[in-house]
Amino acid sequence: MKVLFIGDIVGSIGRTAVETYLPRLKRKYAPDVVIANGENAAAGRGITRAIYQELLMMGVDVITMGNHTWDQKEIFDFIDDAEFLIRPANFSDEAPGKGMTTITKNGHTLSVINLHGRTFLPPHGDPFAKADELVEEAKKVSPLIFVDFHAEVTSEKIAMGWHLDGRVSTVVGTHTHVQTADARIYPGGTAYITDVGMTGPYDEVLGMNKESVLYRFKTNMPVRFEVPKQGREVLSGFFVDLDDKTGLAKSFERVYINADYPFRA
Amino acid sequence: MKVLFIGDIVGSIGRTAVETYLPRLKRKYAPDVVIANGENAAAGRGITRAIYQELLMMGVDVITMGNHTWDQKEIFDFIDDAEFLIRPANFSDEAPGKGMTTITKNGHTLSVINLHGRTFLPPHGDPFAKADELVEEAKKVSPLIFVDFHAEVTSEKIAMGWHLDGRVSTVVGTHTHVQTADARIYPGGTAYITDVGMTGPYDEVLGMNKESVLYRFKTNMPVRFEVPKQGREVLSGFFVDLDDKTGLAKSFERVYINADYPFRA
Amino acid sequence: MKVLFIGDIVGSIGRTAVETYLPRLKRKYAPDVVIANGENAAAGRGITRAIYQELLMMGVDVITMGNHTWDQKEIFDFIDDAEFLIRPANFSDEAPGKGMTTITKNGHTLSVINLHGRTFLPPHGDPFAKADELVEEAKKVSPLIFVDFHAEVTSEKIAMGWHLDGRVSTVVGTHTHVQTADARIYPGGTAYITDVGMTGPYDEVLGMNKESVLYRFKTNMPVRFEVPKQGREVLSGFFVDLDDKTGLAKSFERVYINADYPFRA
Amino acid sequence: MKVLFIGDIVGSIGRTAVETYLPRLKRKYAPDVVIANGENAAAGRGITRAIYQELLMMGVDVITMGNHTWDQKEIFDFIDDAEFLIRPANFSDEAPGKGMTTITKNGHTLSVINLHGRTFLPPHGDPFAKADELVEEAKKVSPLIFVDFHAEVTSEKIAMGWHLDGRVSTVVGTHTHVQTADARIYPGGTAYITDVGMTGPYDEVLGMNKESVLYRFKTNMPVRFEVPKQGREVLSGFFVDLDDKTGLAKSFERVYINADYPFRA
Ligand SMILES: [Fe+2]
Ligand SMILES: [Fe+2]
Ligand SMILES: [Fe+2]
Ligand SMILES: [Fe+2]
Ligand SMILES: [Fe+2]
Ligand SMILES: [Fe+2]
Ligand SMILES: [Fe+2]
Ligand SMILES: [Fe+2]
Repeated sequence: MKVLFIGDIVGSIGRTAVETYLPRLKRKYAPDVVIANGENAAAGRGITRAIYQELLMMGVDVITMGNHTWDQKEIFDFIDDAEFLIRPANFSDEAPGKGMTTITKNGHTLSVINLHGRTFLPPHGDPFAKADELVEEAKKVSPLIFVDFHAEVTSEKIAMGWHLDGRVSTVVGTHTHVQTADARIYPGGTAYITDVGMTGPYDEVLGMNKESVLYRFKTNMPVRFEVPKQGREVLSGFFVDLDDKTGLAKSFERVYINADYPFRA
Repeated sequence: MKVLFIGDIVGSIGRTAVETYLPRLKRKYAPDVVIANGENAAAGRGITRAIYQELLMMGVDVITMGNHTWDQKEIFDFIDDAEFLIRPANFSDEAPGKGMTTITKNGHTLSVINLHGRTFLPPHGDPFAKADELVEEAKKVSPLIFVDFHAEVTSEKIAMGWHLDGRVSTVVGTHTHVQTADARIYPGGTAYITDVGMTGPYDEVLGMNKESVLYRFKTNMPVRFEVPKQGREVLSGFFVDLDDKTGLAKSFERVYINADYPFRA
Repeated sequence: MKVLFIGDIVGSIGRTAVETYLPRLKRKYAPDVVIANGENAAAGRGITRAIYQELLMMGVDVITMGNHTWDQKEIFDFIDDAEFLIRPANFSDEAPGKGMTTITKNGHTLSVINLHGRTFLPPHGDPFAKADELVEEAKKVSPLIFVDFHAEVTSEKIAMGWHLDGRVSTVVGTHTHVQTADARIYPGGTAYITDVGMTGPYDEVLGMNKESVLYRFKTNMPVRFEVPKQGREVLSGFFVDLDDKTGLAKSFERVYINADYPFRA
Repeated sequence: MKVLFIGDIVGSIGRTAVETYLPRLKRKYAPDVVIANGENAAAGRGITRAIYQELLMMGVDVITMGNHTWDQKEIFDFIDDAEFLIRPANFSDEAPGKGMTTITKNGHTLSVINLHGRTFLPPHGDPFAKADELVEEAKKVSPLIFVDFHAEVTSEKIAMGWHLDGRVSTVVGTHTHVQTADARIYPGGTAYITDVGMTGPYDEVLGMNKESVLYRFKTNMPVRFEVPKQGREVLSGFFVDLDDKTGLAKSFERVYINADYPFRA
C-alpha cells in the first residue's frame, strides 16, 4: 500500500498548495491513501466544516489535527460526524471526536492514529500508553498503521518512533512546521521522520507573518499573528510504500516543494 | 570563503565520527574554516580542555557551545584562554569566556558568533539585540560572519534567520540534534538552516541511550541518560561557500552521513 | 510615611470591594498613599481609562500592573499620559508607559516601582538589574521606595526581597492571587510579603469562574475563563509604616478581608 | 479527630525544628495523627530510611512526598516496606511505593492521600481523576480523608480544593515552601489551605542558601543549591479538628512559628 502524508496545512496559501501539487504528487507516487494534517487549515487556527470538505474534495482521504484542534468553535458541531477527521487520541475522554480511523482504498485497509506530545505542551493523557492500546486494536483489522505524532520536541518524537518500531507502518511527527532530514526506516521496519514540516507560506515564520513574530520575540509585547494570504508557498510531505502483509515500510521519500526545491515529476 | 559547520558532537562516538569523516569532508569541500558545536562532546555534557584540544587537532578551527556549556566544571579553568572556544554571547556578563571570535585562514577573516534561544530555556539576555550589537562589531573587521543560534523552537530560529538576513553570511541552528531539511539562502543573501543536527550515536535518542529516554517518557521517573560508547554513528553538518566581498552566501550543502545516508565523495 | 497596598483587583467585584472597604481602611490605617495592582481590573483582563480614573476617584493614588498590562487595547491610548499608572519596568524599551512613578502626599515623597518575574513567564529584561538601576535613581529623590514584583514563583520573589533588603522600604509580590502568611521585615529593614493576594470574587479560582477552571484542569479542553459579577468578595492588602529618614519599615500589617476573615475596625 | 500537618521539612534545621516544636504542638493541639511532608528532609533532596525512622520517632505518623521523592536513591530499597510513607498517587504505575495509606489512632481511622500537580511540572497522571478514585476507595473505610496536593500554581491547588469540597476532610497544598493566608473551610465542609509552607531555614530562599539562589537568578549560571545547617528556623503547619461522623472540618488553625511569629502555647 502506498501512502502520502501532507504536513500541517496553513491557511489559504497552504490549501492552494495542496490544490496545485496534489494532482501532480498523485501522478508521481500513486498513493492509495492521502493523509494531511489540517490543524492550521483555517487561517492558521483549526479547521471548519467547509475546509474539511474542501480538502476531501481535493483528494485528501484522512485529516489529522493537533493543538489547534478546537480553535474554530464550529468543529464541535461536525467532528462527531466527520468520519475521516481525527484528533489526538490522548486528548481527554470528554473531548468529542476520535483519535483513530480506518480507511479501505484499492483493497488495502489502513488505520490512521493521531497522538499528541506533552513536553512543553498541556498534560494530555500518556501518548505512549495510548499508542500501545490503539495499535493493539488496529492490529485486529490490518497490519497497516500510520501514526501522526503531533509534538514539540525531537526527543519525544524519536522516542515514539523507537517505541512503535516494528509495530506500525509509519510514524511521522508534525507541529514544528519545519521538515527534518532524518527520515529513515528503523531496524524493526517502521518508517519514521521527526517532522514532516508545513504546507503554506514559504517566506514567513511557521506560516505566520514574520514581522509580527519578530516583533514578539524582540519585545515580548502582545501581537496577533496573522497568516498572509499572498506569497510563495511550500508543500511538505512524506511518502511511504508499505508491505501489505507485514505492514512494514519498504521505502519512503521526503516531499519538499518550494521555490528553492521545485517539484520534479 | 568556504566554511564547514559540524553539529553538536555527542560523546566519543561523535568525536570518532569527526575523526573519521572530517578528512574526507575536507577533501570534498575544501573548507577554509571548520566550526563545530562541542557542547555535548564530553560524554554528552560539556567539554574538557583535553577534548577541546583533541578537536582542534582533528582539524576543527572554532568550537561553539550551548546550554551544556558549563557541565564540565573544568571549563571555568580554561575557557578564558581558549581563543577559539566561544559560548553563547547573550549569557550573563558574569559568565567567563566570550561569545564571538575571529579567525583568519587562507587570507579570509571570519567572525563566529554563538547565541542562545530563550523559548523553553532560561531567560538569558536578548539574543536579537545581542546579535545586532555583535554584527555591528564584526562588520568592522570583515563581512564574513557565521552565527550558531542554539535554540529549542523552530519559530525563534527562523525569526533569527530573517532578523539577520543580509547582514551575516550564515545562520545555523543547533540544539535539537535533528537536522532539518529547510536549508536555503534567504532573499537578502544569508544562508540558513533551522538545525544542523547532531554528530554522535545514530540509534539512540539525541545521542542518549534510548531505553533510558523511553523509560523517562513512559514513567516520568528519574533516570540518568548515558551516551553509549558503541554503536553506529551519524555526522551532521552544513557547508557554505561565501562571497568574500559581500559576505553573503553563494551556495550551501547539507551534510548528513550515517548508515542510511552514506558519505559520497 | 504610611502606605497601603491593595492586591490584584479583579473585575467589578474587586472594584466594588475597594469602594466598600477603602474608606474603612483609610480610617483604620490613615495611609498617606494607597497603591493598587490593577492588571485584572477590567473583567479580569487589563485596565481601561475609565477604570483607571474610577480607581483614582475611589482613593487609590498609584496603580501597578503585570502580565495583563496590555489586555485592553485602549491602554495604548492613555498609558503615556497616565501619571500614576505604571507597568513593569523590565518590559521592553519599546513598550509605552513607564515602570516607576514618584508621588508626594502629606509632605512625604514615595517612589513606586513595578517589576515582572521571568520564571514560567516571558523572558523580559532582568528584573534584578533593573531594580538596581531604578533604586539608584529613586534614592536621589527619597529613601521611600515601594516595589511591586509581579511574579509566579516563590523563589524569585523571596530572592528579590533579599536582593533589595535594606535598599527599599517594601517589596510586595503579586500575581498568584493568594495572600501569603510570610510577611516580615528583613534584617536590613525592608518589609516583605511573597504575595499580597487578590481583591475580587472570593468563591472562585483566582477570581475566574471555578467551573471553567476545573473543566480546563480536568480535560485540557479550551474554555474561556470569565470573572463572575456576583458573589462574595475578598480584599487583600498590605499596610506598612515607614521611617521617613531611613525609608525602612517600622511595622506592617496584612490586610485580608472576606466572609471568613471579616473586617475589624 | 484532630490532625496536625507539618509542611515540607527541609534538611537538618527542619528536622530539628520538628524535634523542638512537635512536643509543644502536641500539648497545644492534642492531634490524634501527625502528618508531615518529608520530600526535602535529607539535605533538601528526598528522604533516607534513617530520616524516615527519625521522623517517626519524633512523633510523626505519616510522611508524604512530592517532586523530590526519588532524590535519594536508597528510597527504592525501603519505600515498599514503609507503611506510613506515601508518594504522589498519580505517579506512574511503574513507580514503587503507594499514594495512600490508612492509619488508626485513638479509635479514629484516617486515610492520607498524596497527589502531584502538573502545571509547570512533569505530565504525571491526572490528579483530579486519581483523587476521585482514591476518595471512593477511602470512603469505604472511613469518612476521614486528608489530602496533600503537592503542586506549583495556586489555580491548580484551589481547583483541587473545590473539586474535593464536601468529599474529604482536608486539602492542603505543599511545594511552594511559603505558607498562604487563605485557610478556610469551603462551603461543603472541607478545610483548605493553598500552601502550608516549609519547615527549615528561615533566612534563605525556600530553605536553600540565598546567595546561591540569587546568583542563579542574576546570572542564569549553574550553581548547586545547598541547605544551610546553621541558622534560624521556621516551622509551618496546619491543624484541623474533624467531625468523625461526617469527616468534615469543624475548625482549623494555621501554625507558623519563627523568630517573627514565635510559638504561643
Ligand atoms: Fe501544532
Ligand atoms: Fe501546526
Ligand atoms: Fe546539543
Ligand atoms: Fe543544547
Ligand atoms: Fe493578577
Ligand atoms: Fe498577573
Ligand atoms: Fe518541598
Ligand atoms: Fe516540591
